Amino acid sequence: MISNPVPWPNGARCACVISFDMDADSLIHIARSKDSHDRLYPISMGRYGPTVAVPRILETYRRLGIKQSFFVPGWCIETYPDAVEAILTGGHEIGHHGYLHEDPIDAPDQSAWFEKALEAHHKYCGGTPSGYRAPVYNINQEVLDLLVEHGFRYDSSMMADDIPYRIETSKGQLWEMPVHWGTDDWPPFAHYSEIGYMMPVAGPSKGLSGFWEEFDAAYDAGGFFMLIVHPFLTGRLARWKHVETWLEETLNTKDVWFARLDEIADHLDQVVASGAYVPRREVLPYYTAPIGHTE
Amino acid sequence: MISNPVPWPNGARCACVISFDMDADSLIHIARSKDSHDRLYPISMGRYGPTVAVPRILETYRRLGIKQSFFVPGWCIETYPDAVEAILTGGHEIGHHGYLHEDPIDAPDQSAWFEKALEAHHKYCGGTPSGYRAPVYNINQEVLDLLVEHGFRYDSSMMADDIPYRIETSKGQLWEMPVHWGTDDWPPFAHYSEIGYMMPVAGPSKGLSGFWEEFDAAYDAGGFFMLIVHPFLTGRLARWKHVETWLEETLNTKDVWFARLDEIADHLDQVVASGAYVPRREVLPYYTAPIGHTE
Amino acid sequence: MISNPVPWPNGARCACVISFDMDADSLIHIARSKDSHDRLYPISMGRYGPTVAVPRILETYRRLGIKQSFFVPGWCIETYPDAVEAILTGGHEIGHHGYLHEDPIDAPDQSAWFEKALEAHHKYCGGTPSGYRAPVYNINQEVLDLLVEHGFRYDSSMMADDIPYRIETSKGQLWEMPVHWGTDDWPPFAHYSEIGYMMPVAGPSKGLSGFWEEFDAAYDAGGFFMLIVHPFLTGRLARWKHVETWLEETLNTKDVWFARLDEIADHLDQVVASGAYVPRREVLPYYTAPIGHTE
Amino acid sequence: MISNPVPWPNGARCACVISFDMDADSLIHIARSKDSHDRLYPISMGRYGPTVAVPRILETYRRLGIKQSFFVPGWCIETYPDAVEAILTGGHEIGHHGYLHEDPIDAPDQSAWFEKALEAHHKYCGGTPSGYRAPVYNINQEVLDLLVEHGFRYDSSMMADDIPYRIETSKGQLWEMPVHWGTDDWPPFAHYSEIGYMMPVAGPSKGLSGFWEEFDAAYDAGGFFMLIVHPFLTGRLARWKHVETWLEETLNTKDVWFARLDEIADHLDQVVASGAYVPRREVLPYYTAPIGHTE
Repeated sequence: MISNPVPWPNGARCACVISFDMDADSLIHIARSKDSHDRLYPISMGRYGPTVAVPRILETYRRLGIKQSFFVPGWCIETYPDAVEAILTGGHEIGHHGYLHEDPIDAPDQSAWFEKALEAHHKYCGGTPSGYRAPVYNINQEVLDLLVEHGFRYDSSMMADDIPYRIETSKGQLWEMPVHWGTDDWPPFAHYSEIGYMMPVAGPSKGLSGFWEEFDAAYDAGGFFMLIVHPFLTGRLARWKHVETWLEETLNTKDVWFARLDEIADHLDQVVASGAYVPRREVLPYYTAPIGHTE
Repeated sequence: MISNPVPWPNGARCACVISFDMDADSLIHIARSKDSHDRLYPISMGRYGPTVAVPRILETYRRLGIKQSFFVPGWCIETYPDAVEAILTGGHEIGHHGYLHEDPIDAPDQSAWFEKALEAHHKYCGGTPSGYRAPVYNINQEVLDLLVEHGFRYDSSMMADDIPYRIETSKGQLWEMPVHWGTDDWPPFAHYSEIGYMMPVAGPSKGLSGFWEEFDAAYDAGGFFMLIVHPFLTGRLARWKHVETWLEETLNTKDVWFARLDEIADHLDQVVASGAYVPRREVLPYYTAPIGHTE
Repeated sequence: MISNPVPWPNGARCACVISFDMDADSLIHIARSKDSHDRLYPISMGRYGPTVAVPRILETYRRLGIKQSFFVPGWCIETYPDAVEAILTGGHEIGHHGYLHEDPIDAPDQSAWFEKALEAHHKYCGGTPSGYRAPVYNINQEVLDLLVEHGFRYDSSMMADDIPYRIETSKGQLWEMPVHWGTDDWPPFAHYSEIGYMMPVAGPSKGLSGFWEEFDAAYDAGGFFMLIVHPFLTGRLARWKHVETWLEETLNTKDVWFARLDEIADHLDQVVASGAYVPRREVLPYYTAPIGHTE
Repeated sequence: MISNPVPWPNGARCACVISFDMDADSLIHIARSKDSHDRLYPISMGRYGPTVAVPRILETYRRLGIKQSFFVPGWCIETYPDAVEAILTGGHEIGHHGYLHEDPIDAPDQSAWFEKALEAHHKYCGGTPSGYRAPVYNINQEVLDLLVEHGFRYDSSMMADDIPYRIETSKGQLWEMPVHWGTDDWPPFAHYSEIGYMMPVAGPSKGLSGFWEEFDAAYDAGGFFMLIVHPFLTGRLARWKHVETWLEETLNTKDVWFARLDEIADHLDQVVASGAYVPRREVLPYYTAPIGHTE
């Protein structure tokens, strides 16, 4: 059902990424900036991520021998350096995820926020990241240009395909590692009135079951399976136990390639360079002016 | 449980329509007209429809040998001519679905929008369509009059029955091909904060399971089963795989008639003309002035 | 688990009521009074109730030989006299449900609305009804006084117990036939943006399964099981098929008493008069002034 | 999966608390203070808690021989003294839960509310409670200081870990008994438009199934399992029957320690004093000024 499946390394039938956005308590600070510092419940809900969930997740990855991708807002990098160090020590990748999880569409002067986050990456992570994921996926043309300008190799905020595709702008190119609400843990698990996100909270196995069906379909089609999940949600004890069990079973019984997104970008560059693969291209900007009947 | 079941062709027990509303990114442009052109995530979510999902859906239909109905806003016809051509080449029908998915209740001067969409149909689809579905189902009396005036044969926006019924106005008549929230994919799958539609996103099999129960009931009653679904939601990889499997099983094991809505209108005209069937009638307008205690 | 179970007639273990609120399109008229008359989709969604669902429901009741309770706003009685006549002809009861489904808490001059609805009952139903259910359950003290004043025998809008209980005010007494969100069909099936009620729409069997669990618990405890459902939701084809199947199985395999609420009030009066039962009492008004720290 | 499991008494594998917040009708009074006294439906929904559900719950606890923790707003203590007496007579604990369920973040002069609730505890419960849970979990620094000042031994409003942890401030220390949305009954069961909390209402077994999965994970990890539930929701007939069945099965087949939170605080103090356990510490305040780019 995928018209141009990627030839994955060693003939693997599916590439798999469990990508974590470690937003911690940035979410409450950007949403309620006046008094968020005194909102101890949402702060504590977010802190669970870097302090409890990330060590748990990293231990699973270490035991299973897989490397994965994390996206961390710059302010979280500065505030939770131990979690950042543990992620990097484990051989994982940290991508750009804004500074304080600010929505690019809402945040004036996106360039300043973007650069401030980049400084945190330079200081704590040893350089410019390879990839970017927009907070709440809200990438815009300005950010896309910033990515190209700073030499980013991929974005992971858009939904125009099931598998990685090529984004081309007049300034340069990027890989798009596409996201999807069906593999995001906000719909099944987020219950966060302060940011207006009140989902009914599925039980662990039920909330995750849709993800595994998405994997089954991607696997059958020789595709790309990526979870977009959060340590403070999917890294909770009961949920992560289910994910870990699924990881073990999948590694034991399926022919998949678990990889970091930058490794997947490497591989894509290689198969394109060798002529083994022609990716789908999306040329941007899609539009340069408002759409509609007032035109 | 249906008091006046339609005699379907060749004694089929149920008429079946998988109707797709290919809205693409019109939804974000009408909802956020000021800056939608820079909102790359919802644009990309919508573009998945014409570029990835529609070819997939058409391939399934081609393989299974069925023709179905699509509703496409005029702006989408102009913006995605390749998808439109592929739909038409496959022998499918394209109905009127507004110009930019504007809600008729909210859009002043509905007539201008309506005509503008009609121009797109004339230019790209070869004539006036047979059918209409109101964006967000919000048909009003003005649009109904426009449909009659332009010779449309059916509307598909209302819910007054389980099976097709006759709409009669002082200006003329139409078939109503009734919709229902229980066979619409927005409730199980739409997660779209920009348009205020935040459903918890069911897993593929769970989200679709209600549809199949609706079919079972329609089949038992000798009725009419229509899905109102969207390429960017139900045309996603894992969901469409489930629909395809259901289509194959249903075609193999049930006595059903998969048809385009205009073909169903043809059939209805015929059984009415032959006296084999007397349809239920709804006379409109229902009301000519506001209802209530201020009368 | 019920401390004072009612002794039901003939030793039945549970009293059962499938109570229908036939609101038809009153809901859109009270919510959007300016232009509701031109909103054809929600009107048609509501009309499904009196024209398609009610005949279906009545046929099931006729076949199974049970009499049940309907609540119908006065305006709906006037607008859908055929449905009203069919309900009454079937031996069912019609209770007071406001005039245009106006929320008593929001509607100024509740008395005028109440009397206007009463006129419709007198004209079409042959007298003052025995029972009342407040639109959106929002009964207040003024309405309670009106009920007592007009000789109503029961209300069905409150939730203070699992089984019928006695409401006592300084002006008189009533039976309360208690409702509960766990046996109401708005949470599983209502998807109605115009009135701000956007539930994710469960599949038929899943949406109804909670009701049957509620019955099982009521049956085990020797209690009272009442559904609060709507023809345009639960009277839809696939859902009603499930309810009908449940009714048949329950009638065949359980020792239950299906009855109208006024019959249940009769029985309660009788067991109280005979000394066989002492009901729980709630004395109202609960409060006579605002509660809080400003007192 | 828990890095520092607590050694529970007698080698039990998991500590278990079914904590009930008996909010009764305080919720409507704080949300709609102008006319809440006349809103009989939400009042009755809340009254179900102290009058019907609490006696049922206490009977289960008595029969099974377990003591648990309740949190009751001060106004509810004054308004429902019989329920309070029954809880205390059963050997259970009553913690501080605000005065009228006021959200500390929204309520000016938190100290006055806090003291007023404390007076109710002194008058009806025989002294200062050991524990506190913030209404809607919204504890802030001022309340934390009040807890330390009044000698409270634990809070139960935050989410920074799976198991109890130590909160340290410059003024003193407390145990935190952490909460989580995955073990709270508002997401599966709350349907309360007056307070803006419209969940789709899961069936009893489905709504509770996530809780039992959370227990399974806590049990496997040697952790801490706490439900945060409400008599007017989880104390309803069908739901409580499921909880009771689970309690019986768990007591019969698992090695768990059901205890009051103050008993758990005792045990924690003891294992810390003996050197058998070193708890995780969170030092507060987390922040002393607003966070963000305006710094």
